[in-house]
Amino acid sequence: MHFLSLSRSECDDTVTGSVSHSRFSTMEKNRLSTLVFIFSIIVVFYSPQPLAFKYAPRFLGKFAATSTKSQPPQFPYEIKYFQQRLDHFSFSELPTFPQRYLINTHHWLGPNRLGPIFFYCGNEGDIEWFAQNTGFLWEIAPQFGAMVVFPEHRYYGESVPYGSREDAYKNATTLSYLTAEQALADFSVLLTDLKQNFSAKDCPVVLFGGSYGGMLAAWMRLKYPHIAVGALASSAPILQFEDIVPPETFYDIVSNDFRRESSSCFSYIKQSWDEIESTGRTNIGLQLLTETFNLCQQLKRTQDLYDWLESAYSYLAMVNYPYPSEFLMALPGHPIKEVCRRIDGGPAGTSVLERIYEGVNVYYNYTGEAKCFELDDDPHGMSGWNWQACTEMVMPMSSSRESSMFPPYEYNYYSFQEECLKKFGVKPRPQWITTEFGGHNIHATLKKFGSNIIFSNGLLDPWSGGSVLQNISESVVSLVTEAGAHHIDLRASTQNDPGWLVEQRETEIKLIEGWISDYYLKNKAIFVM
Amino acid sequence: MHFLSLSRSECDDTVTGSVSHSRFSTMEKNRLSTLVFIFSIIVVFYSPQPLAFKYAPRFLGKFAATSTKSQPPQFPYEIKYFQQRLDHFSFSELPTFPQRYLINTHHWLGPNRLGPIFFYCGNEGDIEWFAQNTGFLWEIAPQFGAMVVFPEHRYYGESVPYGSREDAYKNATTLSYLTAEQALADFSVLLTDLKQNFSAKDCPVVLFGGSYGGMLAAWMRLKYPHIAVGALASSAPILQFEDIVPPETFYDIVSNDFRRESSSCFSYIKQSWDEIESTGRTNIGLQLLTETFNLCQQLKRTQDLYDWLESAYSYLAMVNYPYPSEFLMALPGHPIKEVCRRIDGGPAGTSVLERIYEGVNVYYNYTGEAKCFELDDDPHGMSGWNWQACTEMVMPMSSSRESSMFPPYEYNYYSFQEECLKKFGVKPRPQWITTEFGGHNIHATLKKFGSNIIFSNGLLDPWSGGSVLQNISESVVSLVTEAGAHHIDLRASTQNDPGWLVEQRETEIKLIEGWISDYYLKNKAIFVM
Repeated sequence: MHFLSLSRSECDDTVTGSVSHSRFSTMEKNRLSTLVFIFSIIVVFYSPQPLAFKYAPRFLGKFAATSTKSQPPQFPYEIKYFQQRLDHFSFSELPTFPQRYLINTHHWLGPNRLGPIFFYCGNEGDIEWFAQNTGFLWEIAPQFGAMVVFPEHRYYGESVPYGSREDAYKNATTLSYLTAEQALADFSVLLTDLKQNFSAKDCPVVLFGGSYGGMLAAWMRLKYPHIAVGALASSAPILQFEDIVPPETFYDIVSNDFRRESSSCFSYIKQSWDEIESTGRTNIGLQLLTETFNLCQQLKRTQDLYDWLESAYSYLAMVNYPYPSEFLMALPGHPIKEVCRRIDGGPAGTSVLERIYEGVNVYYNYTGEAKCFELDDDPHGMSGWNWQACTEMVMPMSSSRESSMFPPYEYNYYSFQEECLKKFGVKPRPQWITTEFGGHNIHATLKKFGSNIIFSNGLLDPWSGGSVLQNISESVVSLVTEAGAHHIDLRASTQNDPGWLVEQRETEIKLIEGWISDYYLKNKAIFVM
Repeated sequence: MHFLSLSRSECDDTVTGSVSHSRFSTMEKNRLSTLVFIFSIIVVFYSPQPLAFKYAPRFLGKFAATSTKSQPPQFPYEIKYFQQRLDHFSFSELPTFPQRYLINTHHWLGPNRLGPIFFYCGNEGDIEWFAQNTGFLWEIAPQFGAMVVFPEHRYYGESVPYGSREDAYKNATTLSYLTAEQALADFSVLLTDLKQNFSAKDCPVVLFGGSYGGMLAAWMRLKYPHIAVGALASSAPILQFEDIVPPETFYDIVSNDFRRESSSCFSYIKQSWDEIESTGRTNIGLQLLTETFNLCQQLKRTQDLYDWLESAYSYLAMVNYPYPSEFLMALPGHPIKEVCRRIDGGPAGTSVLERIYEGVNVYYNYTGEAKCFELDDDPHGMSGWNWQACTEMVMPMSSSRESSMFPPYEYNYYSFQEECLKKFGVKPRPQWITTEFGGHNIHATLKKFGSNIIFSNGLLDPWSGGSVLQNISESVVSLVTEAGAHHIDLRASTQNDPGWLVEQRETEIKLIEGWISDYYLKNKAIFVM
């Protein structure tokens, strides 16, 4: 559903138009435009001129919105707006802003029968795109008699303060209210208002979310237990902060995803960085790389190519689904298997770089329609997630020399801080998320505290390493699928769903039913499915 | 420990000097100066010219600080300062401010033995005064081997932003960060820092608080369970919001406290308002009231006398302790019994107003040293609690015509809002506290959520009606004492403590021991008392 961006391509998160320099076909553009890169990891890889910091841009926005709007929505809803305070935690005189939300009450049982409210915690992007890509929620709502609500996250899509994205993203002052806590308060205030308007004060709310949205869902259940009875937090790396998990976790999982398909594939990729590096030392070499990788523009520095390749590998690990999908890109089922088949499969004499090119073609050009590849047309654009990464969402990431197929890199907080100061004029608060939401010793903390949270994870997903992979208590549980990738459970069902996925969703439905029954029991109501 | 103010006398909450107009003796001034009026209820009583809104000023501050400083502290500590962000929930560029905290590590077991940290959630006043008046915490710390920390609440005492109280209290913009959520974040950030500095990351924190501080302790355990293992929330009316408890609750309890001593006493008080009202219609009548009540200044309107009397009754209900105390005023044990003895005891022919005067003398002048009484010298002064009451802490309070001995009054939110707009230029958010912290259906919500909270209450305390009076779960428990008043359990033990109080404190100690043992067990450490 929501994805990491390691590429340097930028496609921002609003719906205003922009000129694309890509030479892709229109169809390809539309595909590209649906890319949402949720987690913009800030990673620095070793290179002769080491970057202290690089932005991992995000894709959803002007093109994605066009994309969702150009097609009839698969799941219907009304679009509404709610005026939110910009700062819930002070009484400063600030302008309010319109929070967009999507709502469908078609199957709702209504207030008298205490019909549930299914509430998706919007992530960093256009909410319509999330709504269309969270089929699971829509599919199960009718059997629960549930109202469906998809609120947009502040500062994304149309839900921007100060009248326009341009003004909202102007500087650190205008951006300063783009935080997870404010977003959670938005959700709580909106839900309180909805409950009043629908006379639904006693109707149970179930939270859903994937990736960053999953983090929000879990945190909201912990911080606002009076507002929602439970949360399905899919692929939510709430432990990817400070020293809670080793910083190598993410890239080690990506690397293992490739190694398990083929150790030679892993080795070719691991070798490729030095080859790129040594080739790219001269202008002729850069020209050679430009040709080998069929780039639209002359390559200026190898780092850009690194970024482009690294992104492909990381995204492939996230969307390593068992069936063909068009979530980020049109891809075959088990796409890493296919990438490795092509990397390994070149005839004798095929160079490492040619093999790599064949491999990443699976990701960037599976349909074969791309004529050439753009690396990044706006590496310095302001992005909401980059702001969040530079303020609260400080996720240390390293790449191990031994176990990773990526160029080795050791995370350095101070370089990171320096770049955030330079870029946004803001100093990160790397300890704030764990101060506000916890994370250290989460098992001990939540064993007797909290209830009704599902942490679902697929072990192929590189984000799984930063999530909760063991049951914490009877009702704070972990659902782990070995062959799952990034929140596949939240996607619409398909005819090709493997048994384990069908089973995982059935378990989730049963757990949610349990929360609601339990709530009804407490409220002396009868649960009517 | 911390008390409601219904009087209109004002004594603000900073340590800077100010001229007192009182004609009291120095000793009396010192006594007055120790008054802390924690809950400033905004109550409007019926009167011929009804007040839509009146401030219930607070006493702690410049005099109290002088008072605590002039005496050698009973419980020793170091005074330290920690630079806090003014807004934890945004990245606005704002000045930091020094949060004062008191610390004592004398009995602490240290990090290796996982010595506990006892952390008092500072209320709206000078923290030194709270430290000196929370003897229970100091008395039990040695047996737990606990570090003791008393952080001051932002905007009170010395912990003011913008360099001075004057600048901090200038207007709605400077005051806008005076909120409970910011205060809780201060506590969490401070604790995180202290744990780091003392290598005490794994040391269990136990929260304590009384009155508003008790609300903060309970909310902090709910919102920051990763930071503290449990909370003793004494006399914490976390349900005194919106429609959770009937608005008449507070004054009904005060009234019952008088009626249970003597129904004639209750009736005299109930009659007195009309007598004051009819007498005060003329200037001669106002002069008569001035003389009858021995006021230092000519009474200008009967409402001021109402306020003064109502405050006395409400405070008496709160400090209706079973032994002589000097907490708010020098008072005998069971002070309401004594008040009623004097009201009832006048010889035949004694007027109602003369009886009332004799009665309230117990509260305002038990030592007999006051020459006359000041009603209010600064009814319009800015006070931190008034700001909080006008923003988040919107506690609806009415006085029932039937069951209350006070003048009947029906709470009107709109008049209240209007006055807050006029006074501070701020619009209250009456639903925010329950949106942020919950309150409705608290039993259902917390039954499977949350753990390790003691809600302790004495039923004589008028605030008990807004607190949690029944066990919610095995570890979210209610300790109710029939003969207890406002957080008597937090005060230092005395030789006159009745059996039920000794027992209550023993139960609290056992419960806290249980939380810590449980935590140690989980952390595989050995609990050494």
